[in-house]
Amino acid sequence: MPPLTTLPIHFGPHLITSQIFHLTPLTYALVNLKPLLPGHVLICPRRVVPRLKNLTAAETSDLFLTVQRVSRMIERVYSASALNVAVQDGRAAGQSVPHVHCHVIPRSMGDMDARGGGDRVYEMLEGEEGDLGSALRAREGRGVAKPDAERVARSEEEMREEAEWLAAEMAKEEGESEGEGKAEGA
Amino acid sequence: MPPLTTLPIHFGPHLITSQIFHLTPLTYALVNLKPLLPGHVLICPRRVVPRLKNLTAAETSDLFLTVQRVSRMIERVYSASALNVAVQDGRAAGQSVPHVHCHVIPRSMGDMDARGGGDRVYEMLEGEEGDLGSALRAREGRGVAKPDAERVARSEEEMREEAEWLAAEMAKEEGESEGEGKAEGA
Repeated sequence: MPPLTTLPIHFGPHLITSQIFHLTPLTYALVNLKPLLPGHVLICPRRVVPRLKNLTAAETSDLFLTVQRVSRMIERVYSASALNVAVQDGRAAGQSVPHVHCHVIPRSMGDMDARGGGDRVYEMLEGEEGDLGSALRAREGRGVAKPDAERVARSEEEMREEAEWLAAEMAKEEGESEGEGKAEGA
Repeated sequence: MPPLTTLPIHFGPHLITSQIFHLTPLTYALVNLKPLLPGHVLICPRRVVPRLKNLTAAETSDLFLTVQRVSRMIERVYSASALNVAVQDGRAAGQSVPHVHCHVIPRSMGDMDARGGGDRVYEMLEGEEGDLGSALRAREGRGVAKPDAERVARSEEEMREEAEWLAAEMAKEEGESEGEGKAEGA
């Protein structure tokens, strides 16, 4: 399966084209360099702005309709029973890349028991394990990742394969959705 | 100022009419019985359904456009610099009332330093301090609140006053928004 897009797509200052698995005219979804749990993905507006309040109504609406569609697919393919959906909207809320991004994390009962309990997923999101900016800069040779951030960084190849798989799964989802826009390249 | 609405409005099984500070045809916003931080509010679809995937596209769009408008107001009136926006979508993600609700929590740098650091806000959200269902049931005399949940429960009068104040502040916001719908009673 060919890549979903060859357009240069940025997450803040970072080029993440090969991580993209879904595109709409205003929104994209990418697989994560360091997922906190398997299936942890991010949904972003295509326009690089830091805060939810910077989005137009059309961008806000499309972003969360995409979150809804992506969530449905992620819950299905990762056999989850629930999802954490979270935006760290600004630095004081834990945002590390100044580009609006909505975390979607599939959850199952007891999935975090071995790692300190369910609320640990949020702690990780705000802690070093969830520091997207640090990990992305390290990959690009700009700065050194913190040990925790480095630990679970994945290869380009692994992320590309997951993105291609999820793009195919999104295409299956499209037929069942409420019908607000088609995925490009699906 | 009169109450925003006298319609019976439910959050899951709980009657919370006096806590409402904003209404659209598909969405409402309410002040919290036990805010984790001052200004912590909830935005819900008017239709009582447990999961994001149960919402129509119109409901999803209106819910998050309302989150955006309410967030802008909350950030302004609580002099915050950021916001946590989170949906615990299903029980395994920490949801305690089976009615979709989006938390909006205003944040400032260092606001959680005395309570264990910034990520503690998420830990509280999933822990007993954030157990909305337990606190609401206790208020209604159906079951006993856990000590932690009881600790910060507020009076009807306090919540009604805050709801009236925030309703007035939302009315100021409407003129500046992207213009998708007017607040009822504003």
